[in-house]
Amino acid sequence: MANMILPAEFSLIARHFRPLAGPGALDLRDDAALLTPPPGRDLVLTTDAMVAGVHFLPDDPPDLVGRKLLRVNLSDLAAKGAEPIHYLMTVSTPKDTPEAWFAGFAAGLAEDQAIYGVSLLGGDTTSTPGPISLSLTIIGHVAPGTAIHRFGAAAGDEIWVTGTIGDGALGLAVALGKIVDPTGFLLDRYRLPQPRVGLELAGIASAGMDVSDGLVQDLGHLCRASDLSAEIMADHVPLSDAARAAGPDWLATCLTGGDDYELLLAVPPDRSEALRAAAARIGIAVTRIGHFHSGPAEVMVRQASGEPFALTKGGWSHF
Amino acid sequence: MANMILPAEFSLIARHFRPLAGPGALDLRDDAALLTPPPGRDLVLTTDAMVAGVHFLPDDPPDLVGRKLLRVNLSDLAAKGAEPIHYLMTVSTPKDTPEAWFAGFAAGLAEDQAIYGVSLLGGDTTSTPGPISLSLTIIGHVAPGTAIHRFGAAAGDEIWVTGTIGDGALGLAVALGKIVDPTGFLLDRYRLPQPRVGLELAGIASAGMDVSDGLVQDLGHLCRASDLSAEIMADHVPLSDAARAAGPDWLATCLTGGDDYELLLAVPPDRSEALRAAAARIGIAVTRIGHFHSGPAEVMVRQASGEPFALTKGGWSHF
Repeated sequence: MANMILPAEFSLIARHFRPLAGPGALDLRDDAALLTPPPGRDLVLTTDAMVAGVHFLPDDPPDLVGRKLLRVNLSDLAAKGAEPIHYLMTVSTPKDTPEAWFAGFAAGLAEDQAIYGVSLLGGDTTSTPGPISLSLTIIGHVAPGTAIHRFGAAAGDEIWVTGTIGDGALGLAVALGKIVDPTGFLLDRYRLPQPRVGLELAGIASAGMDVSDGLVQDLGHLCRASDLSAEIMADHVPLSDAARAAGPDWLATCLTGGDDYELLLAVPPDRSEALRAAAARIGIAVTRIGHFHSGPAEVMVRQASGEPFALTKGGWSHF
Repeated sequence: MANMILPAEFSLIARHFRPLAGPGALDLRDDAALLTPPPGRDLVLTTDAMVAGVHFLPDDPPDLVGRKLLRVNLSDLAAKGAEPIHYLMTVSTPKDTPEAWFAGFAAGLAEDQAIYGVSLLGGDTTSTPGPISLSLTIIGHVAPGTAIHRFGAAAGDEIWVTGTIGDGALGLAVALGKIVDPTGFLLDRYRLPQPRVGLELAGIASAGMDVSDGLVQDLGHLCRASDLSAEIMADHVPLSDAARAAGPDWLATCLTGGDDYELLLAVPPDRSEALRAAAARIGIAVTRIGHFHSGPAEVMVRQASGEPFALTKGGWSHF
């Protein structure tokens, strides 16, 4: 059977995804990829999915969709203190998805591959009668025994966050036309997370995670994992100028909204200076917002007056 | 904020997926999983996705959907000669997906985890406005330098397949009511692939892959990867009794249909006995169906008369 025509799937992969392939990916021409693990290191692996209409808006620019997909996974690695190396990816698209979407999506990935030093190792492309559905599995590595976990915090440990909290949730509100964003800062923070890759955590944080489902809900996860109670001061939570400009009515959204992709860390008091120094080395801000204490696994948010801050919603669930 | 209610996502994970978690998965409670690579081995990784209405039928039993998802990925590892260890998985489901679906899906995975010695390392669960969408990344390992590739075949190598070809495509025809299947054999082959995990390939096969998109199309991939021409004899292709019973009109479907999940191997003639012995050790059949020769990368299917067998379709593309 001469001159077999290659189906569209293969030419799409060739044009847009093959240029992203790294060592071990076998040019995406094989059934599986090869990875020689970095000697003497533990691998760290995580998977995050994004569905159009659930995790991003159908008309979001495809390059930003690709970059966000990669960055939400990089953020999970950052929370472990891991160095990213490779990723595998599933891309399910409606049959009428224009080629320009794939081109833009791959261009965004290429840009971030260069920034974060990662490459594509493999994946799958399929059609779907539903919305664009993306899933990415990222691989990183750490020195054995040094990965940060959600468990491990102790009573008395301080609670720290990187960057500013709430911009992602407010950015979504901007995208939905609920608030204005004259500088575009909030929308950019929603569309393009800044994973805190490279922040040294080993020997500094006793526990940690990234804030993706909302500060209060994610802090609840740390509490349950370490069987501790947490108390944070609402007015200590770092807000961007743009978030402050949205006004006090949006503070609860900042505390409970998702899509921050900042790190939430438990830090023993005698290591807080080490955290500050590590953050300074990569040019990011870190802020102490409260502390853990013994007691039932729950999160108390206090106003400056000492009164509890009323929240109607613990966070955001994708289910 | 006392007594925070956990959203549905977390309780679903806890009830159905946590029991599948293996060492390093951190009980699926963390941002990422840990894997200490088997010392002195190369890792092999691959990703395959399945979308309801594209790769399986919406009313397929959920335990079989879970098992098929795992097995199509195991089949890719089998084609490399790799030993499977762990997998990560994304499960995107409509909000009205009944809990029984998750229970059945997880039960199927649990059954196959026991059979194949693998465990869940991590993943993501999300809602989707579209059909159920599943993606699985599997990890295995091989001795360094021994993984089988699509490239590497030489002119004169024989073409071998495991098991029988075409049952999966005919099973789909059964599910769609196009042919009858008195014993249920074909439908079972469509719904529950038998990945040829454990077939020793190192030092035996010069190239190989699994047959998932149709024998002729996948053989074309081997041809292009090794820059060779392939010739197979249609009447040498092993068919099951059930496939033969479907009649000669269905032979083209057997040769070009997807979902076989058998292995397609290039084997130098002096190693064919070693292949037979390796197959006998795990109780599977292997059949020689043709050979590679120098020439343009194309597939010739011959009838017993020597005439070319006319095929209108090279195989199946999911795009």
